[in-house]
Amino acid sequence: MTEKPKVLNLGPVRCAFEAWKKLEEIADVVYSDATNRDEFLQELKSGKFDGVVAISRTAESARRTGQLDAEAIQYLPKSVRSVSNNGAGYDSIDAVPLGERGIQLSNVPKIVDAATADTHIYLLLSALRNFQWGHNLMLEGRWVPGNKAAGAPIGHDLGGKVVGIYGMGGIGRAVRDRLKPFGCKKFIYYNRKRLEPDLEGGAEYVDLDTLLKESDIISINIPLNKETRHAINKETISKMKKGVVIVNTARGAIVDEKALFEALKDGHIGAVGSDVFEFEPKVSQSLLELPNLVSLPHMGTHTYETMLDMEEHVVANIRNVLEKGKVLSLVPEHVGLEFDTTPVIK
Amino acid sequence: MTEKPKVLNLGPVRCAFEAWKKLEEIADVVYSDATNRDEFLQELKSGKFDGVVAISRTAESARRTGQLDAEAIQYLPKSVRSVSNNGAGYDSIDAVPLGERGIQLSNVPKIVDAATADTHIYLLLSALRNFQWGHNLMLEGRWVPGNKAAGAPIGHDLGGKVVGIYGMGGIGRAVRDRLKPFGCKKFIYYNRKRLEPDLEGGAEYVDLDTLLKESDIISINIPLNKETRHAINKETISKMKKGVVIVNTARGAIVDEKALFEALKDGHIGAVGSDVFEFEPKVSQSLLELPNLVSLPHMGTHTYETMLDMEEHVVANIRNVLEKGKVLSLVPEHVGLEFDTTPVIK
Repeated sequence: MTEKPKVLNLGPVRCAFEAWKKLEEIADVVYSDATNRDEFLQELKSGKFDGVVAISRTAESARRTGQLDAEAIQYLPKSVRSVSNNGAGYDSIDAVPLGERGIQLSNVPKIVDAATADTHIYLLLSALRNFQWGHNLMLEGRWVPGNKAAGAPIGHDLGGKVVGIYGMGGIGRAVRDRLKPFGCKKFIYYNRKRLEPDLEGGAEYVDLDTLLKESDIISINIPLNKETRHAINKETISKMKKGVVIVNTARGAIVDEKALFEALKDGHIGAVGSDVFEFEPKVSQSLLELPNLVSLPHMGTHTYETMLDMEEHVVANIRNVLEKGKVLSLVPEHVGLEFDTTPVIK
Repeated sequence: MTEKPKVLNLGPVRCAFEAWKKLEEIADVVYSDATNRDEFLQELKSGKFDGVVAISRTAESARRTGQLDAEAIQYLPKSVRSVSNNGAGYDSIDAVPLGERGIQLSNVPKIVDAATADTHIYLLLSALRNFQWGHNLMLEGRWVPGNKAAGAPIGHDLGGKVVGIYGMGGIGRAVRDRLKPFGCKKFIYYNRKRLEPDLEGGAEYVDLDTLLKESDIISINIPLNKETRHAINKETISKMKKGVVIVNTARGAIVDEKALFEALKDGHIGAVGSDVFEFEPKVSQSLLELPNLVSLPHMGTHTYETMLDMEEHVVANIRNVLEKGKVLSLVPEHVGLEFDTTPVIK
């Protein structure tokens, strides 16, 4: 009997135990003992993972292995054919040097859209209505006779508002669809390129400046990369309406947190709902304690159903490399590149 | 010049200052100085409000005047033609003795639907996803490397869930409509009577037992009255699925809070989102501190736009009595009764 191909599972697995168990029928799954980047690079250099053809990776594993950047990538075993990221965003992995080495990178698109968009709606409603604020005042014992809503400031209705969707990919469109029955005045969107009419779903394509100036609510759904880092900064904020509500379930570093803090404090931004933070899990306490910042500890896809689907999709990507030579969901940067696509298992 | 008719404004007015000012062109608006029920009854008995034809009332004013029950109603001046409540629910007013005295009672339906349903969606998402829980853990400094989502338990997606709408009036239907794009499996509903198909909007009519047994999420949108007090109690909870999520933006006393507390603690109920409490603003601290209770201090219509619309509708009801002898939105209990409908202003 031939030896099974090796798969490096950088973990953790939280839900898809069955799928990984089944993968072991055709693969030899190995693990890293690294607790930091240096140890991981040492493992790579030591030859411990020689023969590994596919790697699974999670945002959490980055804490124990560091960024998968050009430096780390050069030490990956020659045998590696694919890296499969568990998540839509893969900003902790450098797609370009991976591609240059002929290693396919896959992410998990689509599956994350619904749970992330649900989180987005929660944050939007809480920010617009001062719900987290009211809840916290209630916990502090401020709900007493005569103190309506525990003293929370009066919020605003979604009805009649202009919603600006910054980034109209799967999540942006899922946000738009969920908001449709809420009676918003109109949807405008900015995207690198205009979508086909059927994907626009009634939203109006505008340039970024128009989106910044006309939106009552700005919904951020763009990936983080060099171009989008600090896309929301002092200058772009200055173009927004006074009292604007911003929601971010994408990546923290899209927003210059210092500029955000100042604008939340002086009231130029009315409220922000954010699932993500620039230096997460570290968040400045002064930012966190602003009553008009609605915050979550990156819970966008924190559901059993979605986590299971995502982890199973990672396994499916790996299985497809083993059996058919190709990942299922190649990242956009890798589309059109040439890869070795001979099946690993003959 | 004839004397203007008297209107008793029990206040407070928070948004519709213009509308009240304009009403003063045709009415003499008077106020109560009472700080409690006894003082209010004393004012009524003293003849201070003799000649008043229309009364405006808010939930907040009940704190300074007490319930408008049979006892209080007997002391209302003979001149009173209408009581106009600022809110959809009027459980602190006894409609029957008012009707017997020939006094029309109006509430504010429809206008409250959107803001209340928005609140409902917020509570639903927070309860299902453990968002408030995660936020609170974050505030406590629990979001540290390796502690995903600050340790918040993994939540659930709305996708694929059975939503049971208990009470399919305007708010129940607005909740259903907002939830449609979220991918729920199906909507079932229970109502005193089955709706016409176009109002059902695809939801399936079931008996209450079926709703209790089959729902993953129970959405409460019924008015509070003798029949619905403690509709959610130990027995009805025992029929629900283990892990059910309940959302209540109607009235606190629909739920037996003691039974709710026990079921939240033992996990039979997975989570509850509630804008309303049985003895609000008093809420037991042990209930409030349960991490699977998402709570708000009655913020269902706490928006500038909706509060303005509601207050303006109260003024419109009063104005209509003065000019045309009839309130605009008579409560259901009064429909079909005979009232003096001669215009007050001839």
